[in-house]
Amino acid sequence: MTQHLPHARSIVQQLGASQIREVANAGIGLEGVLPFWFGEPDEVTPQFIRDAAKQGLDAGDTFYTHNYGIPPLRAAIANYLSGLHQSIGPERVAVTSAGVSALMLIAQTILNPGDRVVAVTPIWPNLVEIPKILGAEIVKVPLQFGLTWELDLQQLLDALTPGTKAVFINSPNNPTGWVMPREQQQIVLEHCRRHGIWILADDVYERLVYGQQCAPSFLDISVPEDRLISANSFSKAWLMTGWRLGWIVAPEAIMADLGKLIEYNTSCAPGFIQRAGIAAIERGDEIVRHTLERYQAARDFLYQRLNAMPGITTPNPKGAMYLFFRVDGQTDTLDLCKRLVREAGLGLAPGSAFGPEGEGYVRWCFASSLDKLELGASRLEKFLQR
Amino acid sequence: MTQHLPHARSIVQQLGASQIREVANAGIGLEGVLPFWFGEPDEVTPQFIRDAAKQGLDAGDTFYTHNYGIPPLRAAIANYLSGLHQSIGPERVAVTSAGVSALMLIAQTILNPGDRVVAVTPIWPNLVEIPKILGAEIVKVPLQFGLTWELDLQQLLDALTPGTKAVFINSPNNPTGWVMPREQQQIVLEHCRRHGIWILADDVYERLVYGQQCAPSFLDISVPEDRLISANSFSKAWLMTGWRLGWIVAPEAIMADLGKLIEYNTSCAPGFIQRAGIAAIERGDEIVRHTLERYQAARDFLYQRLNAMPGITTPNPKGAMYLFFRVDGQTDTLDLCKRLVREAGLGLAPGSAFGPEGEGYVRWCFASSLDKLELGASRLEKFLQR
Repeated sequence: MTQHLPHARSIVQQLGASQIREVANAGIGLEGVLPFWFGEPDEVTPQFIRDAAKQGLDAGDTFYTHNYGIPPLRAAIANYLSGLHQSIGPERVAVTSAGVSALMLIAQTILNPGDRVVAVTPIWPNLVEIPKILGAEIVKVPLQFGLTWELDLQQLLDALTPGTKAVFINSPNNPTGWVMPREQQQIVLEHCRRHGIWILADDVYERLVYGQQCAPSFLDISVPEDRLISANSFSKAWLMTGWRLGWIVAPEAIMADLGKLIEYNTSCAPGFIQRAGIAAIERGDEIVRHTLERYQAARDFLYQRLNAMPGITTPNPKGAMYLFFRVDGQTDTLDLCKRLVREAGLGLAPGSAFGPEGEGYVRWCFASSLDKLELGASRLEKFLQR
Repeated sequence: MTQHLPHARSIVQQLGASQIREVANAGIGLEGVLPFWFGEPDEVTPQFIRDAAKQGLDAGDTFYTHNYGIPPLRAAIANYLSGLHQSIGPERVAVTSAGVSALMLIAQTILNPGDRVVAVTPIWPNLVEIPKILGAEIVKVPLQFGLTWELDLQQLLDALTPGTKAVFINSPNNPTGWVMPREQQQIVLEHCRRHGIWILADDVYERLVYGQQCAPSFLDISVPEDRLISANSFSKAWLMTGWRLGWIVAPEAIMADLGKLIEYNTSCAPGFIQRAGIAAIERGDEIVRHTLERYQAARDFLYQRLNAMPGITTPNPKGAMYLFFRVDGQTDTLDLCKRLVREAGLGLAPGSAFGPEGEGYVRWCFASSLDKLELGASRLEKFLQR
């Protein structure tokens, strides 16, 4: 590439490309690779949800909708959240074109160039790359590795200096499965209130928590006027990754500005997809229960299976759908994961995809059948024994 | 609202809210309002396109797709564009979650805070608001009002000073129907090559041009390495507004960076919607022809009907699907349009929605049946005679 070729601005050139995608690319053309690399269930979206979209298409629901989403979906989301947390009115809910679009919209709403954003890491890479697109600076507070992943709360509070614009917290956490305890949320909320710091809660995995109905949430303990924005998605709990449907809960005072940004980003989500969202959220309890039971069995199986392998140490995740485990002696997990694909037919995500603090670890998405997980585990075992 | 309430950053607070939506809101609860305000056809998406989406849903196409879109859709778009313009490879095509998302992605790719962007106006408001979200500055070059809307080319060239980052051109133009002639495109392209200025061509209406197969396009005369990015959409030509499906054609050298930004904005468009896109683009010639014939009849009817009214002057648009007409003595078209909704049941868009240079004009989307247009025209006539 010569200097004369057109190029993106340097801030964009410096954004991380997906190392997970790099590993997946290494598997292109190979047959029989077991794909545990992406954060995606192996099950298709339930029929009744697909049917709702088809009914919307049959009914001619192919026109623009309101920027915030169709009123019955906003009402359904508000009603669902009010049952899980505390009363949340539909006027605080905006439908988005995917959870990641929710995060981009939130960043556009609050972040100016040079703003300081603190993130609890390792974390889904999109959460630390998105602020950079707006010119913000990211400060990372890494979780500690042990029997489970734990946050050193004081370290987070020390990082949340006056003048910090926002803290990004993803709990249950991708990739570690860390679930932020209620007491820590309370302390962080009070600290952020004192200093006028925004809390961006990525609550995408809130229903994927083991032994509980829902993970502790800032939505449980906040008031509507707090500088708190929650991003969520239909992808994980309702098996709807490919639908690109999410939502935001925000203080009412910023909803008008958020609406403008929705207009300028995607304008609205497709109406027939929003109809599917209503079906999912109003009639999806059974799906969430099924998904959780399946993942719990998958987690328990894989946790025991991996920990029994020499050289592997994995904490038991309290939430989400990943094991984020240590492989002794591995300091280049990107290379390890490429070799696993090519030499063992096993598709895992390198820890370094989640930032330098993830190096030495590997992420395995266990949203899969026990058969496939056992096949994958035996491939890993053989590979490590070589 | 007190200072203590949370608020968006000031750049977002200052973004224009949609005056069109403000007018539409004035009609909430009123029965029988004729809605010509939005840029949306009054026909539902053709059955075979909806069927393609339903087949995708039946086939279980509910998972993530590649950031750039599924290969058969990229190939179909490249093949379609190669027939209209010159050979364009699929490696230069990225599928986006709406045409507006394409514009946002392009802005994120090239615009730094403080960058100078020149736009030919009046123009769809999103095109001038999106750069502001990235902190760029907009300089407007207004079209001249006459028998048709015309560009003073020298004025545009003078505005494209060295150091200008980009020029945004929407041709055929919303709201005026202006179509940029080939000779002007050639001169602008050469000027921009000399000064390293990006051309962002919003080509959403390229098929809606009267008496031609396709509007003149920078894609006809450029080379792949030019600093040219074309944004397009399935919305207008294939009656797919609500689907939120668009695409970008860009120099290959920026595709990797563009892919990262797609990941961080919406990640991908839904797979079953992309299947519908393939059906539209491969089997949609008849739809485009039908749409164009219908709009041409609508334009011809409304052009004559409005020009026969005292106090109204409307140029005859060469493209797009709007009349952008002058109403004598009107200096507050937002107020006029609100009164038209409330007092005459007629939904039009105020020219001021397209910037101060649009004040005094009113936009009428004629993507509608002749019956409805006649009913609307008679309501306008009666209102003006009062």
